[in-house]
Amino acid sequence: SMHAASSRLKVSGMCFFLQILTILLFAVFVRYSPDTSPGLCSPQINCSSKRNPGSDSRFRHPRSRDVHLQTLMGFGFLLAFLSRYGAGSVAVNLLVAAFAIQWAVLIQGFFYSFLNGKIYMEAQSMVSADFCAGATLISVGAVLGRVNPLQMLLMTLLEVILFTVNEYLLLSLMGVSDSGGSLTVHTFGAYFGLMVSRMLYQPHLDKRNQQRDTRHNPDVFAAVGTIYLWIFWPGFASATTVPADAEPWAVLNTYLALAASTLATFVISPLLHEDGTLRMSQVQDAAVAGVAVMGMAGEMLLAPFGALIAGFLAGLISPLGFRFLTPVLRSKLNIQDTCGVHNVHGMPGILGTLLGTLLTALATADAYGNRLELVFPHVADGSRTATYQAVWQLCALPVTLLLVALGGSIAG
Amino acid sequence: SMHAASSRLKVSGMCFFLQILTILLFAVFVRYSPDTSPGLCSPQINCSSKRNPGSDSRFRHPRSRDVHLQTLMGFGFLLAFLSRYGAGSVAVNLLVAAFAIQWAVLIQGFFYSFLNGKIYMEAQSMVSADFCAGATLISVGAVLGRVNPLQMLLMTLLEVILFTVNEYLLLSLMGVSDSGGSLTVHTFGAYFGLMVSRMLYQPHLDKRNQQRDTRHNPDVFAAVGTIYLWIFWPGFASATTVPADAEPWAVLNTYLALAASTLATFVISPLLHEDGTLRMSQVQDAAVAGVAVMGMAGEMLLAPFGALIAGFLAGLISPLGFRFLTPVLRSKLNIQDTCGVHNVHGMPGILGTLLGTLLTALATADAYGNRLELVFPHVADGSRTATYQAVWQLCALPVTLLLVALGGSIAG
Amino acid sequence: SMHAASSRLKVSGMCFFLQILTILLFAVFVRYSPDTSPGLCSPQINCSSKRNPGSDSRFRHPRSRDVHLQTLMGFGFLLAFLSRYGAGSVAVNLLVAAFAIQWAVLIQGFFYSFLNGKIYMEAQSMVSADFCAGATLISVGAVLGRVNPLQMLLMTLLEVILFTVNEYLLLSLMGVSDSGGSLTVHTFGAYFGLMVSRMLYQPHLDKRNQQRDTRHNPDVFAAVGTIYLWIFWPGFASATTVPADAEPWAVLNTYLALAASTLATFVISPLLHEDGTLRMSQVQDAAVAGVAVMGMAGEMLLAPFGALIAGFLAGLISPLGFRFLTPVLRSKLNIQDTCGVHNVHGMPGILGTLLGTLLTALATADAYGNRLELVFPHVADGSRTATYQAVWQLCALPVTLLLVALGGSIAG
Repeated sequence: SMHAASSRLKVSGMCFFLQILTILLFAVFVRYSPDTSPGLCSPQINCSSKRNPGSDSRFRHPRSRDVHLQTLMGFGFLLAFLSRYGAGSVAVNLLVAAFAIQWAVLIQGFFYSFLNGKIYMEAQSMVSADFCAGATLISVGAVLGRVNPLQMLLMTLLEVILFTVNEYLLLSLMGVSDSGGSLTVHTFGAYFGLMVSRMLYQPHLDKRNQQRDTRHNPDVFAAVGTIYLWIFWPGFASATTVPADAEPWAVLNTYLALAASTLATFVISPLLHEDGTLRMSQVQDAAVAGVAVMGMAGEMLLAPFGALIAGFLAGLISPLGFRFLTPVLRSKLNIQDTCGVHNVHGMPGILGTLLGTLLTALATADAYGNRLELVFPHVADGSRTATYQAVWQLCALPVTLLLVALGGSIAG
Repeated sequence: SMHAASSRLKVSGMCFFLQILTILLFAVFVRYSPDTSPGLCSPQINCSSKRNPGSDSRFRHPRSRDVHLQTLMGFGFLLAFLSRYGAGSVAVNLLVAAFAIQWAVLIQGFFYSFLNGKIYMEAQSMVSADFCAGATLISVGAVLGRVNPLQMLLMTLLEVILFTVNEYLLLSLMGVSDSGGSLTVHTFGAYFGLMVSRMLYQPHLDKRNQQRDTRHNPDVFAAVGTIYLWIFWPGFASATTVPADAEPWAVLNTYLALAASTLATFVISPLLHEDGTLRMSQVQDAAVAGVAVMGMAGEMLLAPFGALIAGFLAGLISPLGFRFLTPVLRSKLNIQDTCGVHNVHGMPGILGTLLGTLLTALATADAYGNRLELVFPHVADGSRTATYQAVWQLCALPVTLLLVALGGSIAG
Repeated sequence: SMHAASSRLKVSGMCFFLQILTILLFAVFVRYSPDTSPGLCSPQINCSSKRNPGSDSRFRHPRSRDVHLQTLMGFGFLLAFLSRYGAGSVAVNLLVAAFAIQWAVLIQGFFYSFLNGKIYMEAQSMVSADFCAGATLISVGAVLGRVNPLQMLLMTLLEVILFTVNEYLLLSLMGVSDSGGSLTVHTFGAYFGLMVSRMLYQPHLDKRNQQRDTRHNPDVFAAVGTIYLWIFWPGFASATTVPADAEPWAVLNTYLALAASTLATFVISPLLHEDGTLRMSQVQDAAVAGVAVMGMAGEMLLAPFGALIAGFLAGLISPLGFRFLTPVLRSKLNIQDTCGVHNVHGMPGILGTLLGTLLTALATADAYGNRLELVFPHVADGSRTATYQAVWQLCALPVTLLLVALGGSIAG
């Protein structure tokens, strides 16, 4: 009890210190983007010139027509994550998310919109920060129940920096297309969490974790969480790239993948579990896997049946991973994965990356038409062939895993 | 237990078979609509010509200005249904919805956008599929607890086809205005489910059903479901017809009907129930009845008080139906109605149709102005008088009921 | 039991009477705005002239580009309130909201859009009515558990009128900027509820209330409610004022305040509570306080760190109020505050007003650019200096409190 009280006071002090630090950094560096306030546009700021390298490369930050809708989608995305781990842990998750958002605005600002000693913040900054907070919440899912809030905050501190480095490497330097974050969000978040989990391996906690696993998601909460996923995620998948008047193929692909992964759960679950009580949380896991696999390939798929196949496969491998891979990870590799993020984010993320690479290699100007410019700007402007772009997409996977292995070890 | 295991394996096999079948049919037939990809526009596809008869008649498929918002609304609509039957049954409902969406895209595609051997899918196809899945979920509500998932999937298989035939008859051939689906969604779904329920009458299950009735909707879940209804349904009611810059009368009418039906519940409930514990699920039922009655009349009502009256009446007949009609249906007509869909969808749907007919008969060009073209295109272009249109609207009711009686018997 | 039955019948009769009254008043007075129906535009209605004084002053009713999104936001706002008081009381809250919306459309119509004996209703009317219903729900939170539904309806009847008078005084006559309702919604609602609570002081109910306090918000429901707040409120804060193509500073400020207030809860909670079980409802209270403080200042803050500081302070004073101020209010002033609305709405609302006044005094044309016209139209057109506007903003606080004291006493 004495120990618990002092631990709570440490969390309190840490929150206070981090919030004051963030406020000071915001006060020194962050201002709102003066884009829409011509009156503010002084020569120093130079509004008309190429201010933001990230926002000008078309595949990353197109100016949305409706910022309200965009931010609505961004919040929805983040909160679909939040609702995955059950009501009991939402408070701690919300703490991590609240800090990760502020921290991500700062760190991403230094990479993407740092100019004349100031970071210029806009609605898009907040959506990017939501992405980053989403990856952090995935990692938290791997270590939930074994790490105290203090350690979570320190992990967040490091992960946000690493996430931004990785995202900058992949999207800006390597020119990889990954609008929905199969690689940058799902794969990164899952394997970072698993590396930290490996470093923090505590053998005597095995039993408590298994208890946790069985009751970690009450049915009502899982149902509400699944519904959030279905409502907000498809719209989100294309919110960052496709202009609002184009047909949202990424939305439709994600929606179809969700539908197919739900059927896959009903196919595989009775074969794996003899008691046969299909829990809502399994349906939710399949839905997450279905959207994770569509992250990169979502806007590349030209025919709806591809989304059905990918979603079906993701819905199949996720329960198989829970049954066969999670015990192996725990006993052989000393990795405890509290919420199974490897099954619902990690493997579907890698599957999505491989699918995206395959689709990139097969991309032709004939098949994509003027959509090519949106999906593969480097191929469209002739600076890369489709095969070359595919090699880059594939290279992004080991780059991410390497960064994660290094970063996760340090964080652990 | 042996029996239960084999039944689960049958469901698993059926899901696998249906998903593979759907993937194959999608691979052969379904492609994304090339509307926004001029590069794809070959002479065979003939983009510029009148490709889609449904989408060109203005009352059915106007191109929305914001597809993201539209799809957000569509999902919300579907999921407001999902959350009606309590957390325990959400998993099975989601299975039915996931299959119905895929199947509806195929079947509706054959009717509305089949060209040169291909179905061209767009965001609107998904919203129409959501409508259809909504009707299926209403039917499921009538037989929930007495039908296993295998039978539900077979019922869905047939109902989606029948729904599309009925919708095609009413909207395209007969030119009936029913944007919010009073007739095509609510009345169709409710009576189809009731016909199937009659066919599957099992007298010895009476007692179990009554137990189910009393606890089918835990309070937290009913509260969340009601909130989903209030948030997403009003916006949805006009999403398919009214351009985004017009005043959304259907939205406002639906919202007012929701408010009036809530008061009606508080009026009628203390008179019917002596224990007087007004459960949240009753408020939710009233809300559903309120929106069902506004489905057809929502965009026809020119004065807000009409919506208040209609919502109030719908909120009154729904609890009256639960008290007096459901027992009669069960004892006299051998129809067991697990979730009372007759009271919350069937009767309000018919009431809405009659109200819509009345309003149609009274429609004049003076009163509607340039809105006439949106609501009654056939009256606006002079090919029908208002009275003639009203006769068509009224005829749609027996047509739907006839189709439902035939189809439900076959499905049963 | 006899008494309970007669009380329920009285509620039933009251609901019936109020609904019929509202229907009659709507039938006589309320019509849809003919703005978008040129056919309706007769000389009597005179569409092209300055029809609606409220809607023409730019700070109050700009025509939104997307009414669907706007109404979606409005409902979300209302329902984030609804979900604060736990599932058990949602039914009664929904009754109050359903009546308040209808009544507010009438009363606000008489003030803002009464012309030629008719009220012309549009989407904006509904959003304003949602604001008003929100303030009513805050007041209900102060007296919940001690007031029967009949008294709540009577309180609503009076509060809606007073809210509209206060809003008209502040926004139209005094030209105060308060787009997110720090003063008109949060402060007004909280202190009105507290005044009514004082009038209805029942000493022997102390104990029951304390029991209520501890269990009034189950964790699942609080989690869902918090998520609603995060999703819908930031978008709402600027929905009424800023055009959709401008950077939504109010949205970003509100979002940052939410994040900072969440960290503040984790800072202060371990210091105040020794048992240290941080409940989800505390996080929810902090979130509400964070948005309440941003109501007026949200669109005035030019740098993000201001929002972080304000949110952090609001998140600190709210738990401090629960610990130290609520017992004092109860014992010294005889005010029982069931859900602590003074801590989560009242004090943060006043804090937000003071912050807004300070920012107004510091406002310069250089800093705001062309945003000045949106935020302070009177300063932008030169009819007031910034200091003079700040005096008006500050005067609005005692005016509101005076009105509340009078009205609350009468209502009590």
